[in-house]
Amino acid sequence: MEIFDEKTEYLEGIGKKARRAEAVMRILDTEKKNEALKLCAKALTDNADSILSANEEDLITARENGMKESMIDRLKLTKERIEAMAEGLIQVCDLPDPVGHVLESFERPNGLKIERVSVPLGVVGIIYESRPNVTADAFALTFKSGNVTVLKGGSDAIKSNGAIVKVLRQTLKDNGFVEDALLFIDSTDRAVTTAFMKMNRYIDVLIPRGGAGLIRAAVENATIPVIETGTGNCHVYVDESADCDMAVKIIHNAKTQRLGVCNACESLVIHEKIADKVIPMICADLKSAGIEIRGDEKTRRIIDDIKAATDEDYYTEYADAIISVCIVGSLSEAIEHINAHSTHHSEAIVTNDEASAERFLNEVDSAAVYVNASTRFTDGFEFGFGAEIGISTQKLHARGPMGLRELTSYKFKIRGTGQVRG
Amino acid sequence: MEIFDEKTEYLEGIGKKARRAEAVMRILDTEKKNEALKLCAKALTDNADSILSANEEDLITARENGMKESMIDRLKLTKERIEAMAEGLIQVCDLPDPVGHVLESFERPNGLKIERVSVPLGVVGIIYESRPNVTADAFALTFKSGNVTVLKGGSDAIKSNGAIVKVLRQTLKDNGFVEDALLFIDSTDRAVTTAFMKMNRYIDVLIPRGGAGLIRAAVENATIPVIETGTGNCHVYVDESADCDMAVKIIHNAKTQRLGVCNACESLVIHEKIADKVIPMICADLKSAGIEIRGDEKTRRIIDDIKAATDEDYYTEYADAIISVCIVGSLSEAIEHINAHSTHHSEAIVTNDEASAERFLNEVDSAAVYVNASTRFTDGFEFGFGAEIGISTQKLHARGPMGLRELTSYKFKIRGTGQVRG
Repeated sequence: MEIFDEKTEYLEGIGKKARRAEAVMRILDTEKKNEALKLCAKALTDNADSILSANEEDLITARENGMKESMIDRLKLTKERIEAMAEGLIQVCDLPDPVGHVLESFERPNGLKIERVSVPLGVVGIIYESRPNVTADAFALTFKSGNVTVLKGGSDAIKSNGAIVKVLRQTLKDNGFVEDALLFIDSTDRAVTTAFMKMNRYIDVLIPRGGAGLIRAAVENATIPVIETGTGNCHVYVDESADCDMAVKIIHNAKTQRLGVCNACESLVIHEKIADKVIPMICADLKSAGIEIRGDEKTRRIIDDIKAATDEDYYTEYADAIISVCIVGSLSEAIEHINAHSTHHSEAIVTNDEASAERFLNEVDSAAVYVNASTRFTDGFEFGFGAEIGISTQKLHARGPMGLRELTSYKFKIRGTGQVRG
Repeated sequence: MEIFDEKTEYLEGIGKKARRAEAVMRILDTEKKNEALKLCAKALTDNADSILSANEEDLITARENGMKESMIDRLKLTKERIEAMAEGLIQVCDLPDPVGHVLESFERPNGLKIERVSVPLGVVGIIYESRPNVTADAFALTFKSGNVTVLKGGSDAIKSNGAIVKVLRQTLKDNGFVEDALLFIDSTDRAVTTAFMKMNRYIDVLIPRGGAGLIRAAVENATIPVIETGTGNCHVYVDESADCDMAVKIIHNAKTQRLGVCNACESLVIHEKIADKVIPMICADLKSAGIEIRGDEKTRRIIDDIKAATDEDYYTEYADAIISVCIVGSLSEAIEHINAHSTHHSEAIVTNDEASAERFLNEVDSAAVYVNASTRFTDGFEFGFGAEIGISTQKLHARGPMGLRELTSYKFKIRGTGQVRG
């Protein structure tokens, strides 16, 4: 830890800047924060050309490295995408400031007046992959919530991210704001990323945004508190009393509306009393949408031209045109199967039985539990939070979609008149 | 990770039991939980003899190992101490159940009804040192909040802890409750403790309770989310407008009332305009209470018979009869010094100036910030929470004293009528 090599020195420098900026950001008022975000939005549009030419460099490298076209598309910026980033900053201005709210207040018998007040988390580290728009999005949300952000983006997008950060920091500086509210780790060295995850002295919270591999690396290596986000092995359970047409419609939406997202349905659980009727309907619908179905033995007795599902299938977030199916004998068995295999992100029951619905809501241990609705609604915008930094699948701090409020902590302010403890 | 040696198998077994018990605890109602706690309280008193004889074995080993008498006292149980543990369980019955509260509810334009509801954290791991009473205290709080607890106590108290756990588990079992709501790692092997800290699949949250070494080991080794508790390098700042008598009284209480506790004052920051007057008063008082004072150069110009403080002193939580002092030129300098050296636990300002008080409350980045009161009040009981599992010094999840509410998470329950995402 105390080896002052070049990398350590570089990260220490960033950490110290972050802590200094934190003291300024902590007390910046709402009007000022909104003013800065508006100026930054304008600067992004005004400097689109420099961002696009940096992005072009990333794209050339990516093509040289043989990146898949679907990944190239994630990396690619256009005038329209930059305008969308700017628009995102403006939208965050309109959201309420989550800092400085008195969450509760009470007086003790000894006369101490205690207030619990929302405050910024402090310095938030964000590690993400190849989408450059995350750079502007993450800045907007953390800035509005009074935090300092240290960004570590994917190597593929390093020039694009660097160009966006440069525009934002310059705008802050030119307008009298603390430019170090946004810091950027300009390195593609994995050792730097690992060291970054252990900067407890300077970083209060680490939010990894990306695939399962990135999340696992953060959980396993970080000593900074991590908010685990994103992985979703989401289930839809069709109860014996379900409306079959509704089940087909919800499953179609949950599985096919967007394949690669964390709130997409990956596994179906069907009550045996409705299986003969509903499984052929669901399978016909999914097959016509190009989805491969993998089922247990009971399912294959109803539909015989599908692949067998292994136990591993039931643990898998495909993020692809594949779905697993199994048949259960009861609601209890369904709940047990889901709790054992789920990543505790989002699960839904389709039912017309209120008691079953309530049991499912209470006993399924996931961030978002639905009755008669698609799992695709687990999203900060769909929940009306106006923004989203990620979807937490852990129980500590925040669970489910995280908006501005989830980027705050609190402190106790205690006002006395000389009280001492007896 | 997949090496199935004996230790791994032992911990895996405990993990699986914990997850099975979690499903039962999650839906146990308040009345049942209180009934179990009352039965456990009675059982502790009824079985005091077996607990005391196990404790005697620990004490013999401790004396053979040359344990200090102050530590022996922490380890020692008596009939009275066992009655106090039982009384603790009864007190927790009277506290409100933190589970099942609708924290907010709203309807979306598409008709989805969304509720945010408090739920248990799930499985809570607690690592602690030599006080056997923590075993019963931690059980009471986690059980009342619907959690399963896996305890790993200190080696010194292993027989005592084992005996207490045996009584509690037997009582749960005999009365139809799930005995695995309380699990105990009966091992003194450090490798087992380290493996325990990485059981993400089975444990949702890890709370280390103990000294700085234990906390550091948890933060550095755990892959489970940790709630950092306890270490307190707490400051009292005497502003230029302070009432000097009040300053002496508050500092006396904050430093001397109990030396080894985390909310004790370890460092004084004095405004230079009041230093000549107040420092001799404070030093006379502290010296007569047997406290060693270490000061910066400016302080030593006022009081010359004290030791010089090094920079390290200002970072140190002595937990002993020592205090550091420094003189600053302004409130800003005081805030900067405190934020740079504090562990962000509890800090106080003594002042008659309201603007200074507000600045201190807003700008000092600690869990509890006081105006004209002793730092010793940072405590779940003193705050009126009725209980305390620890004092968080991190910003994620909970900050400051943690009671029953802080042992919960939340989930979203969403009720629809067939909604799908457009």
